[in-house]
Amino acid sequence: MNAKSQSDISWRDLSPLMNPRSVAVIGASQRADALPNREPRGNRVIRNLKNFGYPGRIVAINPKYTEVMDCPCYPELGAIPEPVDCVVLAVPNRHVPGLLESAADAGVRAAVVFAAGFGETGAEGKERQGRLEALSRERGFLICGPNCYGVLNVYGKAPLFASTIPAGFLPGPVALVSQSGGLSTTIANALMLNRRVGLSHIVSCGNQSGASFEEYFNYFVEDKNTRVVAAFVEGFKQPDKLLAVAKKAAALNKPLIILKGGRSEVSKRAAATHSGSLAGAAEVVDAAFRQGGIVAVRSLNELIDAVSVFSCETFIERYTGGRRIGVLSGSGGECTLVSDAAAGAGLEVPELTEATKSQLQATVADFGNMNNPLDGTGAMYDDDKIFPRLLQGLIDDANIDVVTINLEANDPRPKELKSGNRFSAIIEKVAAASPKPIVCFSSIVGGPVDPDILLPLRAIGVPLMEGAECATATIRSLAEYYEFKKSQSAETRDSTPQDTAIKLPSGILPAQTAFGLFEKFGIPVAPSALVRSADEAATAAERIGFPVALKIESAVIAHKSDVGGVALKLGSANEVRDAYARILSEVGRRAPNAKIDGVVVQCMAGEGVEMILGIKRDPMFGPTVLCGLGGILVEVLKDVAIGMPPLTQTQALDMIKRLRGFAILDGARGKPAADIDALADAIVALSRLALALGDDLLGLDINPLIVYPKLQGVVAVDALVQMR
Amino acid sequence: MNAKSQSDISWRDLSPLMNPRSVAVIGASQRADALPNREPRGNRVIRNLKNFGYPGRIVAINPKYTEVMDCPCYPELGAIPEPVDCVVLAVPNRHVPGLLESAADAGVRAAVVFAAGFGETGAEGKERQGRLEALSRERGFLICGPNCYGVLNVYGKAPLFASTIPAGFLPGPVALVSQSGGLSTTIANALMLNRRVGLSHIVSCGNQSGASFEEYFNYFVEDKNTRVVAAFVEGFKQPDKLLAVAKKAAALNKPLIILKGGRSEVSKRAAATHSGSLAGAAEVVDAAFRQGGIVAVRSLNELIDAVSVFSCETFIERYTGGRRIGVLSGSGGECTLVSDAAAGAGLEVPELTEATKSQLQATVADFGNMNNPLDGTGAMYDDDKIFPRLLQGLIDDANIDVVTINLEANDPRPKELKSGNRFSAIIEKVAAASPKPIVCFSSIVGGPVDPDILLPLRAIGVPLMEGAECATATIRSLAEYYEFKKSQSAETRDSTPQDTAIKLPSGILPAQTAFGLFEKFGIPVAPSALVRSADEAATAAERIGFPVALKIESAVIAHKSDVGGVALKLGSANEVRDAYARILSEVGRRAPNAKIDGVVVQCMAGEGVEMILGIKRDPMFGPTVLCGLGGILVEVLKDVAIGMPPLTQTQALDMIKRLRGFAILDGARGKPAADIDALADAIVALSRLALALGDDLLGLDINPLIVYPKLQGVVAVDALVQMR
Repeated sequence: MNAKSQSDISWRDLSPLMNPRSVAVIGASQRADALPNREPRGNRVIRNLKNFGYPGRIVAINPKYTEVMDCPCYPELGAIPEPVDCVVLAVPNRHVPGLLESAADAGVRAAVVFAAGFGETGAEGKERQGRLEALSRERGFLICGPNCYGVLNVYGKAPLFASTIPAGFLPGPVALVSQSGGLSTTIANALMLNRRVGLSHIVSCGNQSGASFEEYFNYFVEDKNTRVVAAFVEGFKQPDKLLAVAKKAAALNKPLIILKGGRSEVSKRAAATHSGSLAGAAEVVDAAFRQGGIVAVRSLNELIDAVSVFSCETFIERYTGGRRIGVLSGSGGECTLVSDAAAGAGLEVPELTEATKSQLQATVADFGNMNNPLDGTGAMYDDDKIFPRLLQGLIDDANIDVVTINLEANDPRPKELKSGNRFSAIIEKVAAASPKPIVCFSSIVGGPVDPDILLPLRAIGVPLMEGAECATATIRSLAEYYEFKKSQSAETRDSTPQDTAIKLPSGILPAQTAFGLFEKFGIPVAPSALVRSADEAATAAERIGFPVALKIESAVIAHKSDVGGVALKLGSANEVRDAYARILSEVGRRAPNAKIDGVVVQCMAGEGVEMILGIKRDPMFGPTVLCGLGGILVEVLKDVAIGMPPLTQTQALDMIKRLRGFAILDGARGKPAADIDALADAIVALSRLALALGDDLLGLDINPLIVYPKLQGVVAVDALVQMR
Repeated sequence: MNAKSQSDISWRDLSPLMNPRSVAVIGASQRADALPNREPRGNRVIRNLKNFGYPGRIVAINPKYTEVMDCPCYPELGAIPEPVDCVVLAVPNRHVPGLLESAADAGVRAAVVFAAGFGETGAEGKERQGRLEALSRERGFLICGPNCYGVLNVYGKAPLFASTIPAGFLPGPVALVSQSGGLSTTIANALMLNRRVGLSHIVSCGNQSGASFEEYFNYFVEDKNTRVVAAFVEGFKQPDKLLAVAKKAAALNKPLIILKGGRSEVSKRAAATHSGSLAGAAEVVDAAFRQGGIVAVRSLNELIDAVSVFSCETFIERYTGGRRIGVLSGSGGECTLVSDAAAGAGLEVPELTEATKSQLQATVADFGNMNNPLDGTGAMYDDDKIFPRLLQGLIDDANIDVVTINLEANDPRPKELKSGNRFSAIIEKVAAASPKPIVCFSSIVGGPVDPDILLPLRAIGVPLMEGAECATATIRSLAEYYEFKKSQSAETRDSTPQDTAIKLPSGILPAQTAFGLFEKFGIPVAPSALVRSADEAATAAERIGFPVALKIESAVIAHKSDVGGVALKLGSANEVRDAYARILSEVGRRAPNAKIDGVVVQCMAGEGVEMILGIKRDPMFGPTVLCGLGGILVEVLKDVAIGMPPLTQTQALDMIKRLRGFAILDGARGKPAADIDALADAIVALSRLALALGDDLLGLDINPLIVYPKLQGVVAVDALVQMR
């Protein structure tokens, strides 16, 4: 499952599922009213379709009736005279596979399956899900679910949706897809009710047995009504397509905002139960998101905030990058809290320019210190002239990228706090003429916001966010997204050369083969030679130059020093001869059955920073490239950076700089700065190697790779390459 | 400013400020209605007092009138016939110092000062504040503020408060004190309106020029109406009293919950502007809170949640410690999110016992996997028998300490989500008979909660929290508080011996003096001798035993190896003699003006884990004890644990275990486990030394302290002790 380049990927057309011209509902009954509070889901779907004004044809399937809820009803799918695009199954799980197979036979192209009891449960459920997956894979049959609430296409007026749809549904530019049905409505309601952010689609995708997150993303990215895609994901089904669709989304300026559950071990247990997802290592997911420019959020509230901000068009147009926020509040305590939150989120709260400071001091008042964060104090409440001047000061200041305003706007709130409305009227006026992006946020997270404040501000491009922590995290996400887009446009298209696939024998590669491979891809290696006698060893050492190391060569010995198979710092031909003999006798004694292929003579590398580079297979995302600092940083603190191949030089440098121990490479403790450019080159080369070796590579370690001081390069000293 | 033991501390009686029998208001006018929207603060205070039913006497001070708002009015304080407990100053800052001085002369004992423009501004303001501080210090005059909203004693019906007090004020057991006036009302309103948690006091303490956080805490801890104390703090004024009042609070079972702002550098800038606070290093504050059992929260929402949970009496009574939560939700996605949040917060989501699992499987249904987190799926909504069985299963399970239920309870919410009310009725019934603590939380943080759910559940001991992250963080705080209380009761009172103060000369101590000091306090040191000739050196080395090290001894050379003043691993008398000569000539060349006191001959310590121990002065909290692993962990990753002296063995072990690199001491990388008990002994000893040396100690480093394998002890190898 290597990451594919965009051109390799073909996408199915989800229209029959997302925007069907006709729908057949199985599981609707005339006896719906017989069960109070327990309307059959089939009836609920028909009601949703009618309430939403679905323009297509609705039929029901039920052998007992000829019509249900004024829709024609047929005994079975084959009996419907016209072709049907999509069938909605509101029936128990045991009936699902057979019904879908006959639907496919009858020319139906898509289905929504609500029932649980598939891949998320025991063997029987897994078998059922297997039949659905086969239908999807082999016959291109599109399935939403099972174990879901279905799909709701707002502009297409097609709610194939099991949950009651609240009145006052708000159409808008956000497509939402959630693995969890419950969270799909929780998130949708919070967006619509608390933030007045409208939706283009809601999809509760459940077990993804027939349509995957990646496919929904692709559909939304191509959908003209959608500008922002938001998702709650437990696991991906087609991770090899994720980066491709992320790239497409970035190219079309449609941010992909994902809350990824299942980071912890316990939550993986929960997710496995819930919808049979393989959650993937959290760090690998992080790496994939980072490289794909996917906006990663960490909580439902952050998701709400990010969607609310990214969907606010005028705001996004005004934002031109940067992490420097200006903070305006009437509460000094809030200034302190926002500053702490900003530091935690990786934002700056820079000092204002001297010009702004003296201008504010002159025009506003003699109170306090005019700096950032800007504390308007009680004076701002008492004198209406103060607030607009402070706001304009931040807008005009050259050090500020985003102006943030702390605003009491929660609803309901006591009359005494209605001063927020006064301030919002001023913001509305000032923001209209502002070239700089402005956001507001409440002190305390969450809940509904006063619509008298929310709606006019949002209309003029000033989104409202929730609390200092969420707000600063969201601005950081915005900055990262912007930085990603910038790096994308700076890079040459397909700058990484495409290497042809390499076939190698299985097992541990001989050292010389591994080193040869590294050299072919441009990773410098310590000069070495394979020898089979003490004299050959001495001759090779003289050619290579002293001091040298000797290492036993055997496909079955992974840890050479454990069996006495290594000798270091040999300074003369005689030392080499002695060491050769000693190694052979030691290894012969300690690993008597190991087939010995000889001894490698290798030039001793000089002093430098020891790194570990590697390729590791993730069960979801395939090969990943790792780097870390040798010793305790990797072994005890697990200080490792991960990248998804192919990697660019910029991405490799980012990996290096993300290491907690980066300061060691940067010249900490009086040592010279290391050649991180050469290190990045080696990481890029390794990422190409990962792709060329493909699924046959089980694992690869370069340990150590010595990084010399600046301009002096790197050298791979020891390697372990294991092929399938 | 050493931490004082409880018995050393005397506390002022804050009653004249917090519960005055009579109040004089300066700054009220008969012309209040002349300024629309701008009622003078003095008038607002009188109105607040009257509305609240203040039982004491109210007088106004204003030379223009004989009565204001039906209260007698006098031209000046001296003219009031009866004594006045407290004066409220609603006047510009320039008038404040003089008025307070005359108030003190007139026998007034306390004051509330609203005006800003004191320590938080320029030189003039600082001078004004200095006069207030002198009044407080020299004459025991109590002052709330300046730069504040004042105090509101709910049960005493005494709101000396500048802000309008909302109707429907809810009395209750929580005392709130906030440095920021704005946040005092924001927090109070969120508690009362969103969580229906009542208050016993609100104090907006501003610049603390006359009464400090520590004094308010002490008052609340002694107040019979208060069970929980909550605070927003930017900086402490009497940090030496903080741990004493925390100890008293713990002994009286009154949790102290603090949101401490000013963690980041920028926020310190904000706080300094705001109320002239010295914020203190975040890590030192963390250490003080941990040792005092203070519940540290990191956001306003966490503060709200923690207060709401700690003030719910029945819940707290049921909680008997432990971090194992059972999670019940109808949404699999929510199960995943809670599990992630729990892992992030340091809670466990353990598997259920086999008994529970099979019982649930039998009695509930064939859906899903019956484990923790417990996903009731849609079935829970459809069948009313399922939810109570699942809930009871978690209550009865031996692996679960706290039962958590995900409940849609936000208000307002669409009719479709009102199933939360159905579940809450069941919870109410089940919880009444539950010996185990139960909490509920909404998926999304914040906002008002449906009172039909909130009130009956809270009454029966089931608090409602906000979102997975806040809820799990709060349960973690609860567990930590419980663990703290348990450790307190396990410890013998005053187990740390009181050492008499030690007086030492100023400057860098000679090595032998420093080592002598360590030995006196029980920290083992490498045997050593001070010598003044090569022969003396050789003799000393023979007595000590080879190998030895030589180190130049000079009060003016802090870094000996930088001037060639160190020789290591000397194996014979001759090597020692040569090294002696070499060191003297090198140091003579490189530091020709340094006065040399001789050379120290020291036994070379064996192999072990190298630690750095130290004492560092914090400008707020005085001496702190540090420990860290030598090398990159301290130098590059700043991996250091901090404790406040005196430290117990348990606290010292906690410090060691908090180190990120702790695995290295615990036997990582094939090394034997180190003697962490001996290391903890050394830390405890160092904490006693810190107290004995007191304010005269500028700094102390033991670098390295070698920690040998288990049962083999530690040894201090090199030391730097600098006295004032």
